[in-house]
Amino acid sequence: MTATDVTAETPIVAADEQIDTPALVVDEERLRRNLALMADLAKSHGVNLRPHAKTHKSPIIARMQLEQGAVGLTCAKLGEAEVFIREGGVRDILIAYPIVGEAKIARLLALMDEAQITVVVDSLEAAEALSRAMAAAGRTLDVYLEVNTGMNRAGVEPNDAVEIAHAISALPGLRLTGVMTFEGHAGSSPPESIADVAAAAGRTIVETAERIRAAGIPIAQVSVGSTPASWYTPATAGVTEMRPGTYVFFDNSIFRHGRIGPEQCAARVVATVVSRQAPDRAVIDAGSKTLALDPSRSHAGYGYIVGHPEAIIERLSEEHGMVTLPPGEPGFAVGDRVEIIPNHVCPAVNLMDELLIVQDGRVVDRWPVAARGKVR
Amino acid sequence: MTATDVTAETPIVAADEQIDTPALVVDEERLRRNLALMADLAKSHGVNLRPHAKTHKSPIIARMQLEQGAVGLTCAKLGEAEVFIREGGVRDILIAYPIVGEAKIARLLALMDEAQITVVVDSLEAAEALSRAMAAAGRTLDVYLEVNTGMNRAGVEPNDAVEIAHAISALPGLRLTGVMTFEGHAGSSPPESIADVAAAAGRTIVETAERIRAAGIPIAQVSVGSTPASWYTPATAGVTEMRPGTYVFFDNSIFRHGRIGPEQCAARVVATVVSRQAPDRAVIDAGSKTLALDPSRSHAGYGYIVGHPEAIIERLSEEHGMVTLPPGEPGFAVGDRVEIIPNHVCPAVNLMDELLIVQDGRVVDRWPVAARGKVR
Repeated sequence: MTATDVTAETPIVAADEQIDTPALVVDEERLRRNLALMADLAKSHGVNLRPHAKTHKSPIIARMQLEQGAVGLTCAKLGEAEVFIREGGVRDILIAYPIVGEAKIARLLALMDEAQITVVVDSLEAAEALSRAMAAAGRTLDVYLEVNTGMNRAGVEPNDAVEIAHAISALPGLRLTGVMTFEGHAGSSPPESIADVAAAAGRTIVETAERIRAAGIPIAQVSVGSTPASWYTPATAGVTEMRPGTYVFFDNSIFRHGRIGPEQCAARVVATVVSRQAPDRAVIDAGSKTLALDPSRSHAGYGYIVGHPEAIIERLSEEHGMVTLPPGEPGFAVGDRVEIIPNHVCPAVNLMDELLIVQDGRVVDRWPVAARGKVR
Repeated sequence: MTATDVTAETPIVAADEQIDTPALVVDEERLRRNLALMADLAKSHGVNLRPHAKTHKSPIIARMQLEQGAVGLTCAKLGEAEVFIREGGVRDILIAYPIVGEAKIARLLALMDEAQITVVVDSLEAAEALSRAMAAAGRTLDVYLEVNTGMNRAGVEPNDAVEIAHAISALPGLRLTGVMTFEGHAGSSPPESIADVAAAAGRTIVETAERIRAAGIPIAQVSVGSTPASWYTPATAGVTEMRPGTYVFFDNSIFRHGRIGPEQCAARVVATVVSRQAPDRAVIDAGSKTLALDPSRSHAGYGYIVGHPEAIIERLSEEHGMVTLPPGEPGFAVGDRVEIIPNHVCPAVNLMDELLIVQDGRVVDRWPVAARGKVR
């Protein structure tokens, strides 16, 4: 088996390769193809690539991204940034999350001695606390203002952006260098409307940047995120930076938009059938502690079982996956192995201590998920 | 504040206690009360207590359970047993999960040199593989036969139990010492029927044991599980052992049965409000990477916010919890802290590296979640 023979319905791992399950395996060739795909896409858009590291949590993959031209990384939490800076040698990180609380500000100040750090803000309360700490330390922190373009999660409303940008830019110790948005709502919209929803988010963030500049604040960066929107939002003139995360592995949440096929998914959970008590029910050793409970909009169940499109992972307990089988489905005897494309690969990675790296069907390496569990 | 003042709607952590969030805090006095409650309940039933360690994953709490009279532990996976034996000094463990595959059997053999291990089987395929390995190693492994009493997960059907028990007891290297069931379906049934459903499961497993004994196989143990059923199933005459897990902390999934109030929940996620962009929406720094996505049958959302019964944790991304607030709800300004009772505490513990131990509102210790992430 060579990697190019591998299709969506072919196992990544050779049948005679021994693996203690459940395990998360990564096909290195597919991973490298995905990294190149997004690096090329960023180039074709003419924007900087600043991948979100939450998907892989791996300093090894981070270095591959930087070698392919990424300008730096995006992290959600300081704890992730600490790992990538101290174990991965990364020197430029955007923390795309509000930093709130004295303990975190102290950790942020320490990181600023080691790398170029930019932090996202979306409230004057958080900005003022950062400002006081930076001024007291004689430091200047670069910040992006987060703007809500429809995700309705964090981010100021576009109509409020100029006022708060003004207030932030007046604070000592802060330098407002950009605006950012996470247009995750594009990927959640129906396949036929993702392009329009993503483009609308792009227009909103670019217009917001222009209004802030018109008010005299010379921000440089206009940053957008979200893998499924990567073909659309960064195409908006005026966007300078994109922050996709999931693309390194892709997952079930991406298929339905038609840009990516399941054969491009680089990460799979390998599981073993451990119980078979009814003709229509098999139990696999991957439960919610391995697959996570994220639903898929593409199809029923908690993951796509490669080669068994009609088998549904119907229920998960922590260590049991209950698979409902169509009549006559082969391959689910006790001891049989299956490969599963997770619905959402990021939490599945976060549940693992290591990724098993596969070349041509063989496990050739184990990469630690070094930034796993860094919720703070 | 003393621990006895703490009610369901009072924070566990003192307002002036500094905590970097999100964090999982455990009120030690409540934990000790819960441990005593279940030890007493087991005594009142006249059955052995063999707690399932999956909830706490902590050798420190395991030792407390053994000191209170537990006969040993239950684990789901070998990897958990390895931690409790090698880091916790536990000497008697039931692995309540089928052991399938050569790698796992090799690990099992190693553990048998260090502790008394019993393993659950529910298929002849798995039993035969274990038998071959044990016979080759000149060892004898104690096994329980898992029986399905309505959960429809693993476990042989009661009508098939005598035949498979016969086949297992004829295998060299295995000693069939008990039957077990997990009656988790009792806790999922409506509050008014849990007692009946649990009692029916108890009758089924006891009758199954009697039929196996009548066939000449002298099994000693009849083992049942599940915290919400702990008041009912083990009361069945003939049950010898109970394996509750969640009771150490309790969680939202337990309230609705009326035996336990939220004030008895010992573990809470402490989170900080990090964004507040609309009157009816706050964002907290606990997402699915902290709370997990398990639903609750007790109430809407992904956890119960202490003191804010009408605030609903409506959506979770990995690091964001989107809270929908009723009009005029106080206490959700950026920087405010909240305490959340998780819907399902076991996966929330599995997402953390440590438990923050609280006495009288102060963090007094940090206990590692040593068996976290042991999916194999």
